[in-house]
Amino acid sequence: MPKKIQILIIGHNGNITPEVEKIAYETGVEVAKSGAVLITGGLDGVMNAACHGAKDAGGLTVGIIPQSEASFANQYCDIVIPSGMGLARDFLNALSGDGVIIIGGGSGTLSETCAAYMHKRPIVAIKNSGGIAEKYADQYLDHRKSIQIIGVSSPKEAVKTILEKINST
Amino acid sequence: MPKKIQILIIGHNGNITPEVEKIAYETGVEVAKSGAVLITGGLDGVMNAACHGAKDAGGLTVGIIPQSEASFANQYCDIVIPSGMGLARDFLNALSGDGVIIIGGGSGTLSETCAAYMHKRPIVAIKNSGGIAEKYADQYLDHRKSIQIIGVSSPKEAVKTILEKINST
Amino acid sequence: MPKKIQILIIGHNGNITPEVEKIAYETGVEVAKSGAVLITGGLDGVMNAACHGAKDAGGLTVGIIPQSEASFANQYCDIVIPSGMGLARDFLNALSGDGVIIIGGGSGTLSETCAAYMHKRPIVAIKNSGGIAEKYADQYLDHRKSIQIIGVSSPKEAVKTILEKINST
Amino acid sequence: MPKKIQILIIGHNGNITPEVEKIAYETGVEVAKSGAVLITGGLDGVMNAACHGAKDAGGLTVGIIPQSEASFANQYCDIVIPSGMGLARDFLNALSGDGVIIIGGGSGTLSETCAAYMHKRPIVAIKNSGGIAEKYADQYLDHRKSIQIIGVSSPKEAVKTILEKINST
Repeated sequence: MPKKIQILIIGHNGNITPEVEKIAYETGVEVAKSGAVLITGGLDGVMNAACHGAKDAGGLTVGIIPQSEASFANQYCDIVIPSGMGLARDFLNALSGDGVIIIGGGSGTLSETCAAYMHKRPIVAIKNSGGIAEKYADQYLDHRKSIQIIGVSSPKEAVKTILEKINST
Repeated sequence: MPKKIQILIIGHNGNITPEVEKIAYETGVEVAKSGAVLITGGLDGVMNAACHGAKDAGGLTVGIIPQSEASFANQYCDIVIPSGMGLARDFLNALSGDGVIIIGGGSGTLSETCAAYMHKRPIVAIKNSGGIAEKYADQYLDHRKSIQIIGVSSPKEAVKTILEKINST
Repeated sequence: MPKKIQILIIGHNGNITPEVEKIAYETGVEVAKSGAVLITGGLDGVMNAACHGAKDAGGLTVGIIPQSEASFANQYCDIVIPSGMGLARDFLNALSGDGVIIIGGGSGTLSETCAAYMHKRPIVAIKNSGGIAEKYADQYLDHRKSIQIIGVSSPKEAVKTILEKINST
Repeated sequence: MPKKIQILIIGHNGNITPEVEKIAYETGVEVAKSGAVLITGGLDGVMNAACHGAKDAGGLTVGIIPQSEASFANQYCDIVIPSGMGLARDFLNALSGDGVIIIGGGSGTLSETCAAYMHKRPIVAIKNSGGIAEKYADQYLDHRKSIQIIGVSSPKEAVKTILEKINST
């Protein structure tokens, strides 16, 4: 079966610090180097930086966007899924990741994390990236404790850990 | 314009304690007494108890469920929207509430809270109900601090507060 | 179980002829007089006229709209489901009808008819209303012939027939 | 901008004749040879045959499926979007195609055709493939006449024509 491994990177849309941008870019590079397909929400900030990194490393990128026209995606998406569903596309993102990496992030990132958690996708969070990643690293989202969000310290560790989790499920 | 006020109650699906059930039932009663329409996710636990209360108090109830057939809804829903969208229906719930009341809850409740927050719906949480309500009362979901989740102490205060917030927006 | 019978009326958004407007209005009246809840796409044209009729006859109306804010609905909707899903809300409409009545209509109406057909909802079409209703009356949508679209001649016959079909399934 | 051209092939799920299978396979081959990405609904019948052809010709394939787990996709999908939205994923398919090729098909195919038409995607239909393709070739879906469904006679002509349409919009 040819299905490739698909890794979702989630995080802030819009303005991000140079530090978070560097982390997102490098995580994109690591995803590409592993041979996995990078899935993102296809917009700006962390999504743009991660796609940029993946493309620079020769990877394949998919952007699943809220709008109904592909032209809203960032310029580093090879394939665009223009969902036309608004922010409910957060569920499509989560379901399309065999595993998820959180970098920073706000309420949209938390929404995607909830969707991934409910569908039992493995999740890692890069701890020094702030926002949702920082707050929920090493935590469970609720009392069910079905999936622990694994805190990691670097892009390389994030991709290595998520691949191990994906391959063991 | 005849549109009625619509209040969304969210919380645990499945087993809930008698205390949480009582809170959910009474909140449903208060919603009905206010003349607002009760919106829920249409399934069990908090959703069932809230609908039960609203019906006992002569209210009108809408259940928006993940499945594609109305028969999956609890028996206290007057109107059923069988979304067929799975858990992504959390976004429909959030968007259908002019305001949101959180009672207990886990990752699904948090998902609905995120969707409501991103769409700037007012949100209150009943503090002594555990789960997500307890954890996020008086908090913001992220650094944007766009909507504060207002902690309240009783079903009566929850409905009074959410109506004030709805009427002032 | 209190769930009310839900009848979906579909047809042109935007400009409609006075004849079609009269048919839509009267069908709304008939739905209300039967005690069923009227479901529509909540916008203009046939949807607006049907809701108007249902409200004048004391009925209850639900509008499921593409946008994420209730203010886009027509003024005759008691309850609004702001789906935020764009035109994919056609599936929500179809699934929310225990039965469907087609009045005129174009490609959006055909989309809703397909969704209803695939989910085996009974469907009637008012023959003298033009558009999709005229073209598909007494037809099947495909070779599977799972649901025949029953051609009828008046609003009264439409509601009588769809109620018979709903009650026999 | 690296976005690749994305061509959607739609048609029967389930049993298809050897003739239709051959047409679908060859159309998949032609899509791959053109360098475009093949988008399908990721299941059986025409979708499976088209993906098979595209893979044999070294192409890249994306399957957007109704279910929430990638394992439901056919074995020739490189990338799977498990939408979890049921048949409403027909809208995702339509929106993800820069252009659409219809091969045979029933009510689901017609639903996707409506969604593509409403979003003004160019559409071609292979005439000798039966079903929806045969019935709607050279037609408009409604009185608006916004997009004509162009009838073509072979897989090669289908891909050549849809690429011309995509490149001229």
